[in-house]
Amino acid sequence: MKLATYTADGQTRTGIVAGDRIIDTGVAGTMIDLIRNWDALKSVLEAKAVAGGGVPLSAVKLEAPIQRPGKIFAIGLNYADHVAESNMAAPERQVWFTKAQTSVNAPYDPITIATGTTANDYEVELVAVIGAGGKHIAAADAAAAVFGYCVGNDVTERMWQHGSPQWSLGKSFDTHAPMGPWIVTADELGDPHKLGIRCFVNGEKRQDSNTSHLVFNVWQQIEHLSTGMTLEPGDVLFTGTPSGVGAAMDPRRFLQAGDVVRCEIDGLGHIEGSMVAEH
Amino acid sequence: MKLATYTADGQTRTGIVAGDRIIDTGVAGTMIDLIRNWDALKSVLEAKAVAGGGVPLSAVKLEAPIQRPGKIFAIGLNYADHVAESNMAAPERQVWFTKAQTSVNAPYDPITIATGTTANDYEVELVAVIGAGGKHIAAADAAAAVFGYCVGNDVTERMWQHGSPQWSLGKSFDTHAPMGPWIVTADELGDPHKLGIRCFVNGEKRQDSNTSHLVFNVWQQIEHLSTGMTLEPGDVLFTGTPSGVGAAMDPRRFLQAGDVVRCEIDGLGHIEGSMVAEH
Repeated sequence: MKLATYTADGQTRTGIVAGDRIIDTGVAGTMIDLIRNWDALKSVLEAKAVAGGGVPLSAVKLEAPIQRPGKIFAIGLNYADHVAESNMAAPERQVWFTKAQTSVNAPYDPITIATGTTANDYEVELVAVIGAGGKHIAAADAAAAVFGYCVGNDVTERMWQHGSPQWSLGKSFDTHAPMGPWIVTADELGDPHKLGIRCFVNGEKRQDSNTSHLVFNVWQQIEHLSTGMTLEPGDVLFTGTPSGVGAAMDPRRFLQAGDVVRCEIDGLGHIEGSMVAEH
Repeated sequence: MKLATYTADGQTRTGIVAGDRIIDTGVAGTMIDLIRNWDALKSVLEAKAVAGGGVPLSAVKLEAPIQRPGKIFAIGLNYADHVAESNMAAPERQVWFTKAQTSVNAPYDPITIATGTTANDYEVELVAVIGAGGKHIAAADAAAAVFGYCVGNDVTERMWQHGSPQWSLGKSFDTHAPMGPWIVTADELGDPHKLGIRCFVNGEKRQDSNTSHLVFNVWQQIEHLSTGMTLEPGDVLFTGTPSGVGAAMDPRRFLQAGDVVRCEIDGLGHIEGSMVAEH
């Protein structure tokens, strides 16, 4: 099933995406509430999807599937080719940072270049949305902890990222976590580790890889994170970006106002945002 | 005014602390809702405080004032003596990491030593709770963005902190952000930069400093953070710890099951938790 958060008639709600239409789930609350009650809701929503109806997708505004995740954790240096282009050593241990809840952005909304910043960059990433969650989840059991997947852009202000030994603030600017266009549930997607993943800027392909090249796969990531920390429904994991970021080009090519960034992953769709200067 | 989140009769609500009693605010929702509506609520709650009543503080369970902050940002290396004991260079630029929402802990609740970890450490910190918040807040205007203050313990698993170049995961273990015992509003506290701040382990004083020694003060912190990121009501800032942490002792002295950690700040009260092994 494909599940979206969308706004229509001034109200934001959750919907089932079926072809080019979207059907109101009728579930009260946010996507996180829906995920918490998924066991009870799944068959109900499957029946709604079959019954059809709804409105054209083009008639609604898609929002980030999870608008206020409790946590957004993101792993660095998790594709071998990106490690090499970053002139970093391949980490023996997973390297995690965070993105602030306030950085979440709708899948087709503009992305802000904050006043005074000049080093905004893109990073297409497979995003895993936690379902049941838990603590001390072994890699062998981790698939059951995931609700579904979507496309993310781990937008980064490189001067702020590298102006401090800690990256989280430079990763947390407003609008710098676009996600969507919807969540594809884990059962519908199947294996998340064999998906083509690409990023385009103004139509020019900049990143082009496959999630099979993740250094630490999603299951290992969940095992590591849940060692000390409880993962909860709707928590969001950015699972790493492949090579091709603007900061690694020679000369460096950072995003400018007017640039259009498109991120796409096989089976999940695409998100696309225009860079706009903060006013 | 002193404002607490507390549980009594199986219900969690907000209350006004007056002497050794606590008075239900009657406000629906969480402390974050109360902060959002503070302009309308302040005079109402002041009248309630004067009217008295309530129940003995000893009859209720105090919870963390903000149980689910949207953001918890924490600054590293922000007392000169702590920078020295950490064998680090004094940063020219503020160094920020995060603590997960799920690490929040009640002020007198046990603190967990996660299975397999052996390097748990304390860090007493002045905690600022954001009120109006905003973006691009100049240091000169930052006082108006703060709702109030409380005591925090930035509990840290040092092996996880330093096992990665990024600290956030080692700072985010469950129960590792005890806060409280209540919020003292900014108008009641007055100047936050002249407060004695101390930490005791089993009655032995380990940290003893004054918030006047902050390298970057609270106003500078808010200016820096709000450059790219919107600060929102109930966001929480851990403003740095002075020298005396267990990791800097020779030999190192990490927290063991049964240890009692007490953190106190002049004018804000104290929090105290026992270390317990995860079972």
